[in-house]
Amino acid sequence: MEFRLLNSIDSPSDLKSLTNRQLETLCEEIREYMIECCATNPGHLGSSLGSVELAVALHYVLNTPEDKIVWDVGHQSYAHKIITGRREQFKSNRTKDGLSGFPKMSESPYDSFGTGHASTSVSAALGLATAANLKGEHIKVVAVLGDGAFSGGLAYEGINNAGASGTDLLVILNDNQIAIDKNVGAMHNYLLRLSTSKNYNRVKNKIWSALGNGRFRRSIQKAVLTTKNFFFKHATVFSGLGFRYFGIIDGNNIEELIDTLNRIKDLKGPKLLHISTVKGKGYKPAEDNQSVWHAPGKFDIETGERIKTESAPLKYQNIFGSTVVKLAEQDKRIVGITPAMLSGGQLSDMMKVLPNRTFDVGIAEEHAVTFAAGLAANGMLPFCNIYSSFLQRSFDQVIHDVALQNLKVIFTIDRAGLVGEDGATHHGAFDLAYLRLIPNITEMAPINEIELQDMLYSATLDSYNGPITIRYPRGNCQGLELPEKFTAIEKGKAVLLREGSDIAILSIGTIGNQVIKALQTIGDKANKVSHYNMRFLKPLDKAAIEQAAQKHRVIITIEDGCLIGGLYSAVCETLAGKQNTYTIVGLGIPDRFIEQGTITQQLKECGIDAEGIIKALNYFF
Amino acid sequence: MEFRLLNSIDSPSDLKSLTNRQLETLCEEIREYMIECCATNPGHLGSSLGSVELAVALHYVLNTPEDKIVWDVGHQSYAHKIITGRREQFKSNRTKDGLSGFPKMSESPYDSFGTGHASTSVSAALGLATAANLKGEHIKVVAVLGDGAFSGGLAYEGINNAGASGTDLLVILNDNQIAIDKNVGAMHNYLLRLSTSKNYNRVKNKIWSALGNGRFRRSIQKAVLTTKNFFFKHATVFSGLGFRYFGIIDGNNIEELIDTLNRIKDLKGPKLLHISTVKGKGYKPAEDNQSVWHAPGKFDIETGERIKTESAPLKYQNIFGSTVVKLAEQDKRIVGITPAMLSGGQLSDMMKVLPNRTFDVGIAEEHAVTFAAGLAANGMLPFCNIYSSFLQRSFDQVIHDVALQNLKVIFTIDRAGLVGEDGATHHGAFDLAYLRLIPNITEMAPINEIELQDMLYSATLDSYNGPITIRYPRGNCQGLELPEKFTAIEKGKAVLLREGSDIAILSIGTIGNQVIKALQTIGDKANKVSHYNMRFLKPLDKAAIEQAAQKHRVIITIEDGCLIGGLYSAVCETLAGKQNTYTIVGLGIPDRFIEQGTITQQLKECGIDAEGIIKALNYFF
Repeated sequence: MEFRLLNSIDSPSDLKSLTNRQLETLCEEIREYMIECCATNPGHLGSSLGSVELAVALHYVLNTPEDKIVWDVGHQSYAHKIITGRREQFKSNRTKDGLSGFPKMSESPYDSFGTGHASTSVSAALGLATAANLKGEHIKVVAVLGDGAFSGGLAYEGINNAGASGTDLLVILNDNQIAIDKNVGAMHNYLLRLSTSKNYNRVKNKIWSALGNGRFRRSIQKAVLTTKNFFFKHATVFSGLGFRYFGIIDGNNIEELIDTLNRIKDLKGPKLLHISTVKGKGYKPAEDNQSVWHAPGKFDIETGERIKTESAPLKYQNIFGSTVVKLAEQDKRIVGITPAMLSGGQLSDMMKVLPNRTFDVGIAEEHAVTFAAGLAANGMLPFCNIYSSFLQRSFDQVIHDVALQNLKVIFTIDRAGLVGEDGATHHGAFDLAYLRLIPNITEMAPINEIELQDMLYSATLDSYNGPITIRYPRGNCQGLELPEKFTAIEKGKAVLLREGSDIAILSIGTIGNQVIKALQTIGDKANKVSHYNMRFLKPLDKAAIEQAAQKHRVIITIEDGCLIGGLYSAVCETLAGKQNTYTIVGLGIPDRFIEQGTITQQLKECGIDAEGIIKALNYFF
Repeated sequence: MEFRLLNSIDSPSDLKSLTNRQLETLCEEIREYMIECCATNPGHLGSSLGSVELAVALHYVLNTPEDKIVWDVGHQSYAHKIITGRREQFKSNRTKDGLSGFPKMSESPYDSFGTGHASTSVSAALGLATAANLKGEHIKVVAVLGDGAFSGGLAYEGINNAGASGTDLLVILNDNQIAIDKNVGAMHNYLLRLSTSKNYNRVKNKIWSALGNGRFRRSIQKAVLTTKNFFFKHATVFSGLGFRYFGIIDGNNIEELIDTLNRIKDLKGPKLLHISTVKGKGYKPAEDNQSVWHAPGKFDIETGERIKTESAPLKYQNIFGSTVVKLAEQDKRIVGITPAMLSGGQLSDMMKVLPNRTFDVGIAEEHAVTFAAGLAANGMLPFCNIYSSFLQRSFDQVIHDVALQNLKVIFTIDRAGLVGEDGATHHGAFDLAYLRLIPNITEMAPINEIELQDMLYSATLDSYNGPITIRYPRGNCQGLELPEKFTAIEKGKAVLLREGSDIAILSIGTIGNQVIKALQTIGDKANKVSHYNMRFLKPLDKAAIEQAAQKHRVIITIEDGCLIGGLYSAVCETLAGKQNTYTIVGLGIPDRFIEQGTITQQLKECGIDAEGIIKALNYFF
């Protein structure tokens, strides 16, 4: 394709002179360009295909970057990036030193607020708008909220505060009925009823004709719009919360979008525009299978076939998925809970065979944990499956609702450590450290899939009580053959994988495989090195650590978590005050945010790949 | 008073034989008893006075403890405690080894779920109810949600999930229009409109007569209740979210309560009963000034006068309140934000003189932080004032919305450290440690009110950037004279308060005063002791720590935060790998939850009072 129009758009001001027809063509070109780029450089294609018209319409109608748009979750923002001066850079989307896959303030003045985690946009936009008011600036602020993000409590807190404040603010509810998996929750059902109700459509058509063309009717329309009568009967959830509700309109129709935005943009107070868009819009394979095409990986544009890398090995999430099913089939107390990561976390396996005991609560991490606590308080054994980065949302619930009451909830923490292309917003960098602070908790991390299986099993045993966390990374397993039978792991016990004379490496979790790799590379020198697979951060195997300190000159700890507060800290605490002579070196994620790239690049950047380990060893050999 | 009826109530089963008239008398006696106890042993009187009838009615109608009640926030539960076998123990409310001021599973089988932080009840109750369903138990589960708690996103997440699940669950919205300060937010306004709307009252009366007495109408009523027609026109916020809405009824009328609960308790699915109660009900001083009587301290029952302890010295919150006003008057960028702790945190001072720049966002800690981030992203300088324990709710927002974007938000963290009578749910035990993990953050804690003032001032200077946290405890200042002028504090710089020969004590925050006291007590031996006031946990003054290690045999760290992950860890990390001979001892909050008591008792229990310090010193002298 030629991208004739698109190539002329270097900033939103270039949009202003285009006709509606040209804008339509531009949207097609953006879509083509996005598909072309994502086919070879994978990204969050589905959501961004759905919001092309919205991005174009907003920049056409608003005066950005003075006016501000906050894109919730952020991966719906590719078109926004492409038309705000980052067309060529978009080819480097989600790669090291390239564009971030999410809006990022330091990347462009058009990115008014960085996003990544869901449901932040209304609160942030209210802050931006309030600041503008205080400074006497007359700007417009828009929050673009996805339907899925509306199950998050933070979005409600923002709506609740914005609605009462009366601040000029437009929230666009970009309703595509799906986050990654099918949306759930009462709010979702409500929105669905809104869009399918006959009564609603009748009212809508009436309003719509009142809004019809013809300049001299503008003032009448404005009066209509500002009266309470305009509120649809079904829209009182929003009007009840102090927002004027407009919609539903077709969010993939650029003309309708521009028309509506122009009509409502100058109205005072908090407004909510409900638009309906199609995830994957304009690319048939993506429209047909929206979950898969949320982030499809590489694909063949013509055939729509996704390009698989060789024979795909099992991922850690697969081990979790199949093991929890096996355990649940044996133990009726077991239930599974996921906050909207059903397929990503592979609890979908359990949903298939035990749907009554599997709960997808939507994007609502706090609720997921307190709900699990309630289940445990009444005799169930919940597996709460959640990504490390999102568990940050539930920190207080883990402390206050689970640990304080010493309830047995098993947290299976996926995407722990460095996650690659999603970058700084999505790393599971902190869980090892922030969970270690909490009394009553057991913290484990397996070195491979066999250990993961055994840890999942062991956690269900009576010898394990209180809250239990098991963390594992994004990505492929080690390719080991899985034994049929589970083996119980003794709580708090490290394993000496290899015994050497001089230097002890203490690793936790799958990063231990980098140690194994490093030691396989350095020949005879490896004989000087012991390798302890710690397995537990809490309770910590202090005896093993003290033994390591006694027998070796140097101790090196390694973890794919923040160096502050995790294994390194725990080892330093354990050995402090011991009147010994030794050196302790900590390898881990340094005290800064790590940008997007491949996991391999990020491990290297942090010095926790085999090469980094060899470098550390060479310093002491 | 004689408490004739009350003395016969040893468990809820003793209620069942009482007439309505007797129940009314019982409520009066409970109220009197509560007032009598709280006059000499202070507690959360106001909320609990308001919910006496509710507690009695619920236990009268339900079959507890098989049926389960979850009391949100928890301090509305005194009557519940008194009638569930804890009448005499209530005299020990909130004291060491006495009753907890909040429901607590380990205390009584009638406490189905422990609470303390707001907005957890719906999620927990949904968990309890779902577990019962899975086990095939036919029980009733009730969540009692205060109006204030409904601004918390977790409550919405719970409602959103419960409404879609169709689970049998009764949520009682105990609407007393006030949390501690006046309630805010769109939901609150909505509830207020509900209760004052003429149209609503007309519909209500109609429904009410349809619900009138006469047994043979029961089945008709039931049909009415189960049809959509029963939903009030104004109640669609709840019905939109999948709940059947009932109300508003007078929650201080025991007869009306019992009647209504009996009518709706067997209806299937998620139900919301909206009741209106008066905070402080039945005690005129408490009704007249609800904020003050939320937790009034000791008082004279006859006169209603609160008993002040001597000449009340300034509290740390007062220093914050007055200083932020001084700073804000000089700097137009400064705004103040509180999540419903306006008077508790003393941002009320700023609200009085600069109301346009002061924001009480309601119980919504996550929103408070992301809103602050939005304000900062558009050029303002927000002071976000929040209790340490509640900031746990915003852990992800501090990381993702503030620190990742390196926005300058100043977090003033009140109630840091041990908080006394509120106990385990409310300690600020973790903030030092969990904030230390976050890149870009500056972490400070003043030793006294002068340093607090100077830190608040210094944080506004350009030499301080990114997120800044200043923590200070509940309670009185040191009684120092405050200088008129502020002094800038060099970032990351500790102060050597006292130089000795042998042992170095490194303290952070006001716990340093216990060190000063200890050293004043031990005579000449104090000459052996150096005392460093660290002031900063991040950036850490590593030079001072290394100097301390070089010059002393022993290093003792002390902090009123969890020992894991805080100052002790930071010092261990700093000195690990240094080929020195020394001992490091850490004093702090141990790795368990600390129950209620006085702060003095709790400091002693943790070994971080002067006595504990002397004991540690004596070991090494």
